[in-house]
Parts: sequence; C-alpha cells; structure tokens
Amino acid sequence: MVGGIYNLTASEAIARLRAAEFSSLKLAQACLGRIGQREPVVAAWQYLDADQVVAQAIACDHAQADGASLGALHGIPVAIKDICATADMPTGWGTPIHAGQQLNYDAAVVERLRAAGAIIMGKTVSTEYALARAGKTKNPHNPSHTPGGSSSGSAAAVADRMVPVAIGTQTGGSVLRPAAYCGVLGFKPSFGAISRFGVMPVCRDLDHMGVFARSLADIVLLCSVLMGADGRDPDCWGADGWGMGSPSDLPKLGRSPRIGFVRTSAWHEVEAEAQAALVDSLELLTEAGATVAEVSMPSTWDEYLATIDVLMACGAAVNHGGDYDRHGEALSPQLRQVIERGRAYGSLAYSAARQAVVDYSIALAPLWAEYDALITPVTTGPAPEGLHNTGSFKFCGPWTLLGGPALSIPVGRAKNQLPLAIQLVGARGADGHLLAVANWVMAQLGDAWRLEPPA
Amino acid sequence: MVGGIYNLTASEAIARLRAAEFSSLKLAQACLGRIGQREPVVAAWQYLDADQVVAQAIACDHAQADGASLGALHGIPVAIKDICATADMPTGWGTPIHAGQQLNYDAAVVERLRAAGAIIMGKTVSTEYALARAGKTKNPHNPSHTPGGSSSGSAAAVADRMVPVAIGTQTGGSVLRPAAYCGVLGFKPSFGAISRFGVMPVCRDLDHMGVFARSLADIVLLCSVLMGADGRDPDCWGADGWGMGSPSDLPKLGRSPRIGFVRTSAWHEVEAEAQAALVDSLELLTEAGATVAEVSMPSTWDEYLATIDVLMACGAAVNHGGDYDRHGEALSPQLRQVIERGRAYGSLAYSAARQAVVDYSIALAPLWAEYDALITPVTTGPAPEGLHNTGSFKFCGPWTLLGGPALSIPVGRAKNQLPLAIQLVGARGADGHLLAVANWVMAQLGDAWRLEPPA
Repeated sequence: MVGGIYNLTASEAIARLRAAEFSSLKLAQACLGRIGQREPVVAAWQYLDADQVVAQAIACDHAQADGASLGALHGIPVAIKDICATADMPTGWGTPIHAGQQLNYDAAVVERLRAAGAIIMGKTVSTEYALARAGKTKNPHNPSHTPGGSSSGSAAAVADRMVPVAIGTQTGGSVLRPAAYCGVLGFKPSFGAISRFGVMPVCRDLDHMGVFARSLADIVLLCSVLMGADGRDPDCWGADGWGMGSPSDLPKLGRSPRIGFVRTSAWHEVEAEAQAALVDSLELLTEAGATVAEVSMPSTWDEYLATIDVLMACGAAVNHGGDYDRHGEALSPQLRQVIERGRAYGSLAYSAARQAVVDYSIALAPLWAEYDALITPVTTGPAPEGLHNTGSFKFCGPWTLLGGPALSIPVGRAKNQLPLAIQLVGARGADGHLLAVANWVMAQLGDAWRLEPPA
Repeated sequence: MVGGIYNLTASEAIARLRAAEFSSLKLAQACLGRIGQREPVVAAWQYLDADQVVAQAIACDHAQADGASLGALHGIPVAIKDICATADMPTGWGTPIHAGQQLNYDAAVVERLRAAGAIIMGKTVSTEYALARAGKTKNPHNPSHTPGGSSSGSAAAVADRMVPVAIGTQTGGSVLRPAAYCGVLGFKPSFGAISRFGVMPVCRDLDHMGVFARSLADIVLLCSVLMGADGRDPDCWGADGWGMGSPSDLPKLGRSPRIGFVRTSAWHEVEAEAQAALVDSLELLTEAGATVAEVSMPSTWDEYLATIDVLMACGAAVNHGGDYDRHGEALSPQLRQVIERGRAYGSLAYSAARQAVVDYSIALAPLWAEYDALITPVTTGPAPEGLHNTGSFKFCGPWTLLGGPALSIPVGRAKNQLPLAIQLVGARGADGHLLAVANWVMAQLGDAWRLEPPA
C-alpha cells in the first residue's frame, strides 16, 4: 500500500480509530487531502463541503473522548450518491433541473449511517435521474474512460481512495457496472433488504440500494448497518442481517462451492479479454476444488430485457414525466425517449411484466438448490473509452429483475490497464450465503481483485 | 360444546391425537360425518373424496404407530380453497371453464401442509376466479344468507365444524369478509409471508394467502407451518415465524395495547348494529386498560379503492384475459367488466398505482409506531340476505393494498343471529405482534368471539 491512511479499508480504519492510533479528524483530513489531489482528474463529487466533514469528524472524536458508545461506522467517511436525500446537503438527482435541491430529510440509508457514527462525506455524481446522460466523473484508472454509471461518483471515489466506502443504487446495472469499470467491489443486496425511503425513484420494481467497498469485510459491515425493515418502503422486508455475519467473522461456506457458469445468449458480445478473464477465473476456482458447471437459461429468459424496459420506462414516466412536461429540452434526448417509450406502452404491459417475473422466478428456482452461486459476465468488457456512454446493463439486468444479491469482483486488468471483473449472483434472500461464496472465491483469486489506483 | 370430536380445534385435536385418545382415522371420519350431515345445507365443497381422506388418515395412524416423527399438523384435516393446486385432486378456480382441471403439482401451501402431516380434506368453493360470480356455498348460520367470498367454502367449512382449519386467499377482502360473515377467525398474514406458488393468480401485487380457524392457537399453528421463503414466489420473503410464537405459547404483549380506531370515510355505510358492536368492543377494551384513540387516514387515502381497481382489473386482464377471449359468455358479466376495465386503463396506470402504494406506506408509517394495532370495520354489517352478492371489500382493501397482517374477530351476533366482527390491522411484517394484540383483545371479549354453528 502506498500513501496515507486514506488507503485503509473501513474495517481497518475502525480498528485503528478505536485503538486511538489516529483520530476521526485525521482520517477525514487524509480523505479530504486525497480528494483535493485527485478530484480535478476524477470529478467524483457533486457536493462536498470540507467544513461540514471536519465538523462531523470533530464530533466523532469528542464522542470517543467522552467515552460514548461508538457506532459500527464511527468516524468512517461514506460517500452518498446524489439521488439520496440529505437534510444538510443538496440532492441534485443528476440533473440541472434539480441542481441544488434542498430536501428537509435524510434518506433511510443516511439515517442509518449517521446513527452508526459515519461521516457523511458528501454527494457523489449520478447520471441524469440515475438513468441517462453521463455526469462529469472519469475513470480513476484512466480519465479518458467512463467510470460507468449511474453510480459513477460513488464507484470512482472508492476506487480512487477518496473514501473507503460509498452508497449507490441499481435499477439496471448501476452499482455492479461502475464497480467493475472502476475495479472495486460493488454489491447489490436482495431486493427489499435496504430501504429506499428518501431515494429518488426510477421504478419501484427495479430500484435497489447498493454499496461500494475495497474489502469484503467492508461490504458486510455496511450491509449490517443498512439492512433492516422500514415501513416507509413497502418492498423493504429487511430481515436484519440476512445471514451476513460480521466484519470480524465473515460468512464462510465450510466447503467448496458449486458454481453455475452462465454465459448468457449475449456471450458473443463480451470482449475476448473479458471472456478469457472469466473463463480463467473459473478454471482457477475448479482447480481449487469448486464444482463448476455451465448453466443454460430457460428459453423465455431472453425476453428479460423487454420486461426490464417496460418496468423502467413506465417507472421513469410515472416518476419523472412531470419534469418532462415542464422542462422539455432540459432532459437529455436519451431520457426523453425512455419516458416517451413508457407512455407508449399498452395498458397491460406493466402488469404483464410483473407477472413475467413470477414465471422467471419459477423457472430459475431449481438452480438455487443446485448451485451456491452463478458466475456470469458483469459487463461486455473493461470501461470503454469516452465519457458519454456509461455502458450496457445487459449482464446485470436479469439479476436486478430477479432481485437476488449480486456482487462484482475485480479479476485483474485488461491490456490497457483498465479493470476486469466477474459477477457472482445468488438466490433472493440468501445474501449471506452469496458473500460466503464470494469469500471463498476471493481467497482463490489471491490479489487479483485488489487493484491499486494511480498514486 | 355439543356433538363429536369434529368440534375440536386443531390444537385441541393434536394434543388428543398424540395422547392416542383417538386416531386420525376417527377424527377424519367425524369430520366426514359432519360434512355428510351438513353439506346438503352449506355446500362448502367443490371436491371431496371420502376414500382419499380415509387413506390419508390411515397413513397418519400407521406413521404414528411406527413411531415416526410427527409433523406439526399430524392427522389434522385441512380444507383447501379450490384455486390452490393439488396434484391428486382437481383444481377448478371457481369457473366451469376449468372445472375438473387436473394440475400435476401441489401449491406451496399444500406441499407444506402435507410435509407437516395434515390431511388434505378436499377443495372448497371459490367464487369465479376468486373474483366474481358467487359459488353454491351458503352461510352456515342461515343458508339464505351469503357466506361471503371469495374463500366462501373455506370460511363456511370451518364455521360449520366440517374441518378445524382451512386455507383461503385474499386479493381484496376474500379471507376477512367470509370469516366475518361466517363467524370464525380469518387471518391474512403480511404480503410475502406465505408463498403463492401454485395458486391461481388474480394480481401479483394484491394476492395474499390466508387462513381460517376457530382459535388463535390454530392461527399461530397454521402460520408456523405455512410461512417461509419460496424462490418460486418473487414476493415471498417469508422470514420463518415472523415472531409468531407457538400454539402452546401464544404471542403476548405483556402490557395493555395502544389501539387506533379507524372509522374510515365510509363509516356511514356501516349498519347501525355493526357500528354499535365495534364501538362497544372498543369501550370494553378501554375499560380493560387499552389506550384507544381515533385515527384519521391521510386525505390521499380515499383514492385507495381506485388504486386497488387498477391493480386488480389489470391483473385479472393479464392472467385471465385469454379465457375472456376464448370463452366469452362463460365468464360472468361482472368478471367480463373487470377484465374490460383492466384493458381500458391507460399506459401508466399500473406503474402509478404501484408508486401510490409507496406514498400510502410513507403516510401511514408513523401510525405503526404510535399504535400496536388499528381496529376498523371488516364489513358493512352481517352477511346480507341472498347468495349472489358476497359483499364489499371496501373495509378490507386498504390493508390488502398496504400488505400488513389483518385479522377478523367475531364479536357476537346481530339481531338476526348472523355474526358480527371487527378487524385488527398491523404493520407489515409485524404479524406476531398483531396476534399478540389479538390475544389480549380476545381475552377481554370473553366468549363473544366463540360462535356455535347450528347443531
């Protein structure tokens, strides 16, 4: 590891903070320093006020000095995607239409982070309404490449060591894709595991909360803080914990996993380097003792993109059609098309899409008994050059639709030095089990998943 | 108690079966005898084969004699609403179009009942597609009155002591209303608590499984068997137990409850006798120590019927529109209108209805912190005369839409001797807590909730 304490993971930093090896203020200042150095290149932040950060850090240190009981994230800087409401910072939803919008409440995730003692570092760049036009953020590994979206700033900030962990959201592939492109862990827990109260909706039936981190322990730590029931989100059951274990006691399988390899019918769209990285990883896992078998999706499965489009486009039209009508050209052409598509769908399209998910779930149910996890591409390859296209959600969408937990794990770099990644997918509600598989998989990968950013 | 062992609750019968006071066969025969006596009047059954029942009972007795480990419902006859798939009995969905339909699998609830050792007694009458035209069932308390619907046969069979417990479903008010009309307990657990795999869908977003019983211990017993995750139902989270306790150790509050009294804006539609029964019950609870306060619903709330109609009509159109197109006049005019209404809704109606439920949930969330349960009418009054109209779901619909647990409790009889009832409603996911409140409430009601059927 190079450089300062901003390189620490949250779990590492917590241990040292508790041991008073350094103060919360010192950690926050180290992160602010890193941001000051790198933000001109990476442009991860939509809103960041160093004074607010310092004030929170000092409050953390006072609490610790006073012998107060410390929360699970005491003193840890966390970045918040700018579609999550914060009472004391603007929430811009990635659009000039709502730039500087001041909401008078915290999103549920922000409430929980504050209650756990985290430092709300600031708001990270989102694509337009978490759906369309790219923001200003660049890929930390090469600023001429996209960081992916829509949680662009959160992924880039964690990859670039500006913060140890960050909050994102995923409606198609908006957590896993930027995680893959930026070379960090990106985890989307099961649908309903984390409340979306106070988070700008795209579509109730697809929107998930997610997290970015640089260690599996940090993923577990964040989930243990964020998961839990919330009556303000009618889909949030949030059985506390979901078998997540604790950061100091990561979920373990206790045996070699059975893994299903899902090429998908779009395998030919995956670049050769990314195909090879995935196949090589599976060989490595097989040598280590995993049972790996190729799994074909049911034939109806290829309609999933059409199903997602109905849900996403109608959701966008319902939730943001008012802005379309009022602000017209201030919305990108891409977003306008989504809303127009939503409005053009037939009367029963949405209800039929909801019912189709039942059919998919029944068709895939036997897989979850047969395999501990599926491994499948997360993107078509490393982050493409250019900043306008944040990438396709083709390989993430099915698992968003099904609502199971999904994790993007880096697996080294492409020739152009941009990160490569694989996707682990589990059964809905079996979040802890999927992370146990991930724990085993990452142990076999050695250091291939640890990608250093530019110094 | 008059008559034979068919009068026993499931919990009572289980204790006696285990003590070998009588055999499963004897219990099954007692229930068959009661059915033989009363079915000509009540007409609760769509399918019942005494030989199949006897064979299951004998198998139960053999298992017990062999010292096998006995399931939680070992030897208990359970009636199944005829929209739930049974591999060995026809499943007719309440319509001549599917009369005698032989499905080759069991619904998840039937799987779980069989695994728990229950005797699948037969299939009970449902209204047409659990939605429209009434079936043949009569109210056991007065056969010129409706039993309510759509779970008509299940409610009537339990009320008439043909079986101790039964399975129903609720999309609007199809468990609580027939329970209220027939004078038994009817419980709809939280949305997602019990899998709907293998159950004819009306609308994914409203359909709930539910249970009928003659004691709270039996409600708890059934839920402990039926609740649990199922990947084949994408909305079924089913955290096992949901704080339900066990039949021998019913959930207890440990203090007097705080109760919100919800008249609703349709209070004037409630008949004077039913109004008085509800108000008297609340006075009784207040005298016993409960804190009762009147609660007004938010102003947006009155749109809930419109929201339900979008979900229900579009769901019916998606799931049964094919039958409409193929079988035309074989569908009742009422059902045809529902499907036509579904097809006529605008493109974004369904998505907007889904989003509206988020708003309702946010608006009502503070109530669940303030009150242990809400008490509200369950119907407009006792079962109306005539068999064609199974009643309105106006007072059940909001709580179906919100997805929280809801329980109908009898509170004596009207002057015409038909049962009266009240509805207890809780926060989604807090099923055990609601039943703890119910336990307290029923203790104060004395024997008012125990209604004997005709001998």
